[in-house]
Amino acid sequence: MVDVIRVGREIRRADVASDSAVREHLGQLTKPVGSLGRLEDVARRLALIYGDPPPTLARRCVLTFAADHGVAAERVSAYGAEVTGQMCRVAGAGRAAINVMAGACAAAVFVVDVGVNAAEPLPGVEHRRVRNGTRNLAVEPAIDGADVARALAVGYDAVVTRLDDYDVFAVGELGIGNSTSAAAVTAALLGVEPHSVCGRGTGIDDQAFERKLRIVADALRRMPHTPTVAQVLGMVGGLELCAITGATVACARHRRAVVTDGFIATAGVLAGVCANRAIADYVFASHMSTEPGHALQLAHIGVAPLFELGMRLGEGTGAVLALPILDAAARLLREMATFGDAGVSQRSGGVGPL
Amino acid sequence: MVDVIRVGREIRRADVASDSAVREHLGQLTKPVGSLGRLEDVARRLALIYGDPPPTLARRCVLTFAADHGVAAERVSAYGAEVTGQMCRVAGAGRAAINVMAGACAAAVFVVDVGVNAAEPLPGVEHRRVRNGTRNLAVEPAIDGADVARALAVGYDAVVTRLDDYDVFAVGELGIGNSTSAAAVTAALLGVEPHSVCGRGTGIDDQAFERKLRIVADALRRMPHTPTVAQVLGMVGGLELCAITGATVACARHRRAVVTDGFIATAGVLAGVCANRAIADYVFASHMSTEPGHALQLAHIGVAPLFELGMRLGEGTGAVLALPILDAAARLLREMATFGDAGVSQRSGGVGPL
Repeated sequence: MVDVIRVGREIRRADVASDSAVREHLGQLTKPVGSLGRLEDVARRLALIYGDPPPTLARRCVLTFAADHGVAAERVSAYGAEVTGQMCRVAGAGRAAINVMAGACAAAVFVVDVGVNAAEPLPGVEHRRVRNGTRNLAVEPAIDGADVARALAVGYDAVVTRLDDYDVFAVGELGIGNSTSAAAVTAALLGVEPHSVCGRGTGIDDQAFERKLRIVADALRRMPHTPTVAQVLGMVGGLELCAITGATVACARHRRAVVTDGFIATAGVLAGVCANRAIADYVFASHMSTEPGHALQLAHIGVAPLFELGMRLGEGTGAVLALPILDAAARLLREMATFGDAGVSQRSGGVGPL
Repeated sequence: MVDVIRVGREIRRADVASDSAVREHLGQLTKPVGSLGRLEDVARRLALIYGDPPPTLARRCVLTFAADHGVAAERVSAYGAEVTGQMCRVAGAGRAAINVMAGACAAAVFVVDVGVNAAEPLPGVEHRRVRNGTRNLAVEPAIDGADVARALAVGYDAVVTRLDDYDVFAVGELGIGNSTSAAAVTAALLGVEPHSVCGRGTGIDDQAFERKLRIVADALRRMPHTPTVAQVLGMVGGLELCAITGATVACARHRRAVVTDGFIATAGVLAGVCANRAIADYVFASHMSTEPGHALQLAHIGVAPLFELGMRLGEGTGAVLALPILDAAARLLREMATFGDAGVSQRSGGVGPL
């Protein structure tokens, strides 16, 4: 089994030395300089990851990792824990939001069961269950060290086994109670207070919100003084969050862009970046969630969201919408004409390269 | 030839009477209520246009209308007028930004020459030239009434001839000098000052910017007191702006969504909405341009941009990125499971429909 944390520590930055050459290439494309705004930044970052020109990103997929959480027993979600498995069945049948949205974005969807609390394998879902849900982080460490390592490897392998078929990976999650786990993970990794990272998740009432805040605060108090990333994931993590960390490390290791989703998925991505800052070079934000901690996570990673549509569903639904945008950016460098080869007049009296 | 203004006046609103039924349908989908944020508003509006469920919007295209502007002689662009025809050739060859971005978004691109000032038809471009560029709006009315009507019909027909093949239409433009025309059209339609609508376009210097402001101010002074939409288009319009107005009217008339691009394309869309407020029901914004007048236009139409990426290229490059998002929204209503048919537990202690 791959030691994901060790692999993660050895990852190097994207090819930042090529930055000025890529900027020059962008400046030669048949359009006013800078006129595609942030799309040009996306193109530039893709070129540093994949080389210039990057490949088209037509072969794209979403990995939606699912798991249950012992903390759901504390009634921190508007839904019962059984909904995780039920929603996995819907997604396995191709009828969840992520499936239908992926259809619009020409992306394949793979739902990976890392730890759903169900009796049997779920139809249409990849069965990689490490254990049937975590323990309750409100009363004990959620996952032991060996299972953290296994869940990290599940995510890592989910990418590695698809490297021949897909050029870019979006990550998402499914798991009732996991916004509490993601809040605790984020607070521990960033050293911030529970109120900065606790939101209303699926739509909880005031009482449930107070419980959530208290549970996160209590869990943070039980945390070792300067915990490792693996310790944070073990104390308060989720199996699907570990898998997302593993997928992030795999993308960086194999020089693929990884597109994060909302607050919960980004907690897993953040854990990877906290293990090794260089991993941030491979991460792209998609949307800005309504969950309050998401902006903190993205700021720490150093990526800005491409759009803000008030989404808070998870499953990878924000990330999947970003995939055509990344593909469009990649194609600017791969397919667009330059002023020179197209015989287009450069600007009159322009300063510097067009 | 179709009388576009007359057809436009007769357009009725989308099926707003169905709004509560569509909201109920959205509330039954297997996700927390409202958790897809503005994507749900997009889905709802699509259902009012096409019926519930709307079709998938997999058959999508961009209509990029191109024309030259006499006002380019006033040096209000960073590029010479010859660049319009040159860029049409690049787009006709499939190598402009709009072509490569459309490839990422699974959209077809049609470049329509409504009035490029070139000796011959342009390869790869649909030849519907009304005349070789407009007159100089800084010194005389840009287009006579008969040519306005012809250019409107070019845009109308560009949609109507594609109704069997495409379910949704994005609009874009190509034309050196057309941000000056769009600024004058917008100022005249909305009754605002030139400084509210004049921006740097392709990237002009201070002197060119001052000229642009003065030209727009002078043109507004020559405008009739309460001009009709056709008069505004004739005095200061562009042939490609007229075509976009025509395409907008055709979409509304045939109950298709039309996705606008940046400031210049939106001036054409705005003219349609000013002819008949009901047309706004069929209009979707894509990005928020850096041009200052774009926000004013969108606010008047009553649509909000889906993303803001600092783009200012035109051609339909912002609009095309919105097409997968619209398709994703349509598919929520068409393809997603409901709580009832999927056997997923509704929220515990929830209030009202989930």
